[in-house]
Amino acid sequence: MKTALVILAAGKGTRMNSDLPKVLHPLAGAPLLVHAMQSGASLGPSHTVIVAGHGAELVRKAARSHDASAIIVEQNEQLGTGHAAKQAQEVLKGFDGTVIVLFGDTPFVSPETLSAICDAQRSSDVVVLGFEAEDPARYGRLVMDGTQLDRIVEFKDASEAERTITLCNSGVVACNGTLLFDLLQAVDNDNAAGEFYLPDIVGIARARGLKAAVVTCDESETLGINSRAELSAAEAAFQNRARADAFENGVTLPAPETVHFAFDTVVGRDTIIEPNVVFGVGVTVESGATIRAFSHLEGCHVARGSIVGPYARLRPGTELSENVRVGNFVEVKNARIGTGTKINHLSYIGDATLGEHTNVGAGTITCNYDGVLKHHTEIGNHVFIGSNTMLVAPVQIGDHAMTGSGSVITSDVEPEALALSRAPQIEKPGMATKLINLLKAKKAKQQRGS
Amino acid sequence: MKTALVILAAGKGTRMNSDLPKVLHPLAGAPLLVHAMQSGASLGPSHTVIVAGHGAELVRKAARSHDASAIIVEQNEQLGTGHAAKQAQEVLKGFDGTVIVLFGDTPFVSPETLSAICDAQRSSDVVVLGFEAEDPARYGRLVMDGTQLDRIVEFKDASEAERTITLCNSGVVACNGTLLFDLLQAVDNDNAAGEFYLPDIVGIARARGLKAAVVTCDESETLGINSRAELSAAEAAFQNRARADAFENGVTLPAPETVHFAFDTVVGRDTIIEPNVVFGVGVTVESGATIRAFSHLEGCHVARGSIVGPYARLRPGTELSENVRVGNFVEVKNARIGTGTKINHLSYIGDATLGEHTNVGAGTITCNYDGVLKHHTEIGNHVFIGSNTMLVAPVQIGDHAMTGSGSVITSDVEPEALALSRAPQIEKPGMATKLINLLKAKKAKQQRGS
Amino acid sequence: MKTALVILAAGKGTRMNSDLPKVLHPLAGAPLLVHAMQSGASLGPSHTVIVAGHGAELVRKAARSHDASAIIVEQNEQLGTGHAAKQAQEVLKGFDGTVIVLFGDTPFVSPETLSAICDAQRSSDVVVLGFEAEDPARYGRLVMDGTQLDRIVEFKDASEAERTITLCNSGVVACNGTLLFDLLQAVDNDNAAGEFYLPDIVGIARARGLKAAVVTCDESETLGINSRAELSAAEAAFQNRARADAFENGVTLPAPETVHFAFDTVVGRDTIIEPNVVFGVGVTVESGATIRAFSHLEGCHVARGSIVGPYARLRPGTELSENVRVGNFVEVKNARIGTGTKINHLSYIGDATLGEHTNVGAGTITCNYDGVLKHHTEIGNHVFIGSNTMLVAPVQIGDHAMTGSGSVITSDVEPEALALSRAPQIEKPGMATKLINLLKAKKAKQQRGS
Repeated sequence: MKTALVILAAGKGTRMNSDLPKVLHPLAGAPLLVHAMQSGASLGPSHTVIVAGHGAELVRKAARSHDASAIIVEQNEQLGTGHAAKQAQEVLKGFDGTVIVLFGDTPFVSPETLSAICDAQRSSDVVVLGFEAEDPARYGRLVMDGTQLDRIVEFKDASEAERTITLCNSGVVACNGTLLFDLLQAVDNDNAAGEFYLPDIVGIARARGLKAAVVTCDESETLGINSRAELSAAEAAFQNRARADAFENGVTLPAPETVHFAFDTVVGRDTIIEPNVVFGVGVTVESGATIRAFSHLEGCHVARGSIVGPYARLRPGTELSENVRVGNFVEVKNARIGTGTKINHLSYIGDATLGEHTNVGAGTITCNYDGVLKHHTEIGNHVFIGSNTMLVAPVQIGDHAMTGSGSVITSDVEPEALALSRAPQIEKPGMATKLINLLKAKKAKQQRGS
Repeated sequence: MKTALVILAAGKGTRMNSDLPKVLHPLAGAPLLVHAMQSGASLGPSHTVIVAGHGAELVRKAARSHDASAIIVEQNEQLGTGHAAKQAQEVLKGFDGTVIVLFGDTPFVSPETLSAICDAQRSSDVVVLGFEAEDPARYGRLVMDGTQLDRIVEFKDASEAERTITLCNSGVVACNGTLLFDLLQAVDNDNAAGEFYLPDIVGIARARGLKAAVVTCDESETLGINSRAELSAAEAAFQNRARADAFENGVTLPAPETVHFAFDTVVGRDTIIEPNVVFGVGVTVESGATIRAFSHLEGCHVARGSIVGPYARLRPGTELSENVRVGNFVEVKNARIGTGTKINHLSYIGDATLGEHTNVGAGTITCNYDGVLKHHTEIGNHVFIGSNTMLVAPVQIGDHAMTGSGSVITSDVEPEALALSRAPQIEKPGMATKLINLLKAKKAKQQRGS
Repeated sequence: MKTALVILAAGKGTRMNSDLPKVLHPLAGAPLLVHAMQSGASLGPSHTVIVAGHGAELVRKAARSHDASAIIVEQNEQLGTGHAAKQAQEVLKGFDGTVIVLFGDTPFVSPETLSAICDAQRSSDVVVLGFEAEDPARYGRLVMDGTQLDRIVEFKDASEAERTITLCNSGVVACNGTLLFDLLQAVDNDNAAGEFYLPDIVGIARARGLKAAVVTCDESETLGINSRAELSAAEAAFQNRARADAFENGVTLPAPETVHFAFDTVVGRDTIIEPNVVFGVGVTVESGATIRAFSHLEGCHVARGSIVGPYARLRPGTELSENVRVGNFVEVKNARIGTGTKINHLSYIGDATLGEHTNVGAGTITCNYDGVLKHHTEIGNHVFIGSNTMLVAPVQIGDHAMTGSGSVITSDVEPEALALSRAPQIEKPGMATKLINLLKAKKAKQQRGS
């Protein structure tokens, strides 16, 4: 059965106190919306329709940058979830498969749950995702009639008996595409808020003698984000799960509470992650690597046996081969580093390719920017870059070459050659003492003067 | 009504196990005493009297550096809170307004509570600050007589009935100035500890037919600090409140538990603070800025659109204009940085003024210290400072100028000029291999020898 | 009475999901096994026998590197704790003192508890370490007969009455050496798992009319580690104890939850440790020092009055004398730093000796590695090292000498001399603007071309 996603993402999120649309606030490095999209993508949908409203342009950009085929439709007025879902009608015209309506501010609905919803939709007209609420106070109740969902009652409209029900409405629904928009046509806004409510399709379907079923999931999957405090709680929940997963996968984490993962971080077995490590998006660390304390990784790959940090920053485009060493106060960006190569101290390596078993001295800088353009540095195998070498790109250093400490290398260096740019050391006997005495006299004079 | 503060700050704090007087231990970057002073300052008091004892000189210095008009009186012997308060008599001679007695180790009494105490004092002779204790065991009980405070009973002296009272004494009292010292005169030390107790003024006042009232506050405001563990719990309470406030104010904090605020940190709406950021005192960050992971800020101002870190250290006197970029392993001290200027990597900028849209290359250092004196560096607009430039202050770099990578700049550079100090690159073919072979032979010889 | 330790360390620890033997997983910087060895060492044992199995070579190496006299015996098949203990028979042949059997995955048994076990063994034949279990479900029960231990019953074999017993078996036993192996000889593997169980010696001893006693300890001491989640919980327990101890000892810790201690960290009174500090093994910090935020210390000593960090990394072999200052983005390794010396910014000092009251400028690097060998740098007293000085080791800088900013120092410098290697500054008027215009034209051309 073909599937289409409709993700409601139009809300402003007033309680966030933010100019950023609510669904674009990040959770584990990705906008809330992307979490919903990613979970939905597990169904292999033929259409992913995002209903945007507040900050629609920003939402479009974020959605497209995650999935270029996402279709963004705009809801110009926010008239309720039913009205929002209806905005997808035009782009889903003629789509006769299962449509699942998700929420851009509800990031944790799992692929397994979505799959169960799809399965249930094959034998029912409408499927609603429900959950057993620990504290059901503020949720709509799912009133069952045997195995069928009879109707959804808001708490304020519920009878005493209905209020004892703990099976609650998550808001997520699935329905045949043609039927969905037919039912939405019948939803009215005859209620206190004057809004068109998506859950009303259940009552309408039942009144027509159609079948409605419930699929349930854990309450934690249905967590919706409405404030920064809720977002923070969701982040904490995400991180705790990620840390527990890491333990299961055999990752060594002495202080798990100080390690922050992104939604897509991959870390191999027996890799050690010391305290205070931050993973941005797009990081893969193979098995048997070590990420030392105070390291920051984004968009990079670390191969087996490599040791990173402490205080190493790997920026996007960094590829570390096996047994590489990136040490303290070192920044690497858009660079491939060959097997066994060491960059141990106080260096900036950007836009570069380094060969194998090369040693980069402390204070080395690839001068990759000339004020207008960026240039590439290429360093061979078994090279020895002396401390504080400036590599003015574009420049190539041949295999087994060496640069003298403090050199500014502006021309290519041949293999096996020693290159250096250095003024001879001169010594002025007694001059240090003279200078200091002069300066002290000056200072004393200044102090008398002030 | 005029107000005067008397803050008791003479205690040693034996349980702190410290040479530092208890009231000087820091909470959120400020001594406990300063928290009490700052809260009291909201009343606009005509006198702020600090009663110092242990470490009086240190206490005087800390109090004065926060408020130059603070009056320090010394309590040479610690004979109880009544005796301590009495030390203020001389400096408050003739003061006929409201005197509030606070405690230097009780940092959380709020301005609102102090204001309520002042209001209550207008219609009562003595006002005591009370609180409903969750676990009242160790506190003195406030025995009421209708709306009047009848007396204060210590737990050990309390009857069974009195022990069921949960309204407890915080120790804070307010009283007309002339009356306070008159009542204190009547307090005796006829008790087990042989101390003069401040709360005894309530019984004395009541015996004279005077009125005593109670103002209540939340128990958390009355938290007094007696040990390092209690101080740590107070710090945690402070930080949790600060993080919750930040959420309310629209600050984005993915990992709030890793961000440490100072008592006076100000952060604007939609500013992002990544994990592991430490704020020292005196920091203001405008709206829409980004403070990346592992950054450390003290005494600085960050304007809208600026991005700081990761691993950036902003020290006192740093002023970042809009859209400035201070990147990794960069230290900035006592420097104004113009709009759009970038200092992205591994640099030290101290005692400097940088113009707009200037680019500072990696490894740049302002050599601001000559061994005796500090000097200033001035860099214009649209300047390009090449990587690893040493700027030997005092020195000026004109607008649109450029320095070559690896240069030591000791003289001023004209606008639009290129300045450099560089030895030419020379290359010795085959020399790297020869050198390495020589060194390997030497090593082999050493190893044979050892 | 002579004592011998037998530490069972043969298990694979399948639930750890690791190639590393379970007992070698680190807790507070030391392998679990080392914690057990260290606790046992407090008894001054004549023999410390480690029974290794999985990863025996790694276990041997770790044990020996902690205690060179440790005896490693191999258990080639894992046939139960009784079988494991029996492997020590050969090396303890003729040993007639007290043998205590400990577990390599149980790191928290205290010296006090071990001492109590030894004392009890003097008047009993067999001693078992028990504990009152909060949730006794999965533990074996200690069935007492007055003050004597009658027998140990596994939960699955226990009667209803026995199941109400909360005194449980930790697994630790003590016994006279000759008797232990005699009893072990009688243990059979006639049980579901087909294993030889060490606790069975109690029943055998009792059947022979021998005396068995119980010594109890807190349940937290008996915590065994079987999974990474349990290891993480043990680490958290260790850290919380270490932080509480630090408070007791008068250490100032504004954010204790962000400070990570090693098992052997020593910190003096009134020393301040700011947020986010990581201690590796072998660190001693004297009283009255300050370790600022984001610092990382391993194998080093920090004397009174020194200030380290923020962002300082002290590596093994670092010795800071009094009032030393190591600032941000500075790495120090295998170096002695004299009183009052300052290394404030962006430097690498390795394999070096620095005198007193010397100032090391920003960006200074000791070039200690020539590609093959490491060399030493020696700097005297009252030296001024200019910013970005490369000290090409081996090299000596005399007292009161000075180096010019940006110099590469390859030869020794005399006392009081000024040494520098610097090309003169040249200025090309208008050249910066010309260059930028050329580059912009090139960029425009590239963009047209692409």
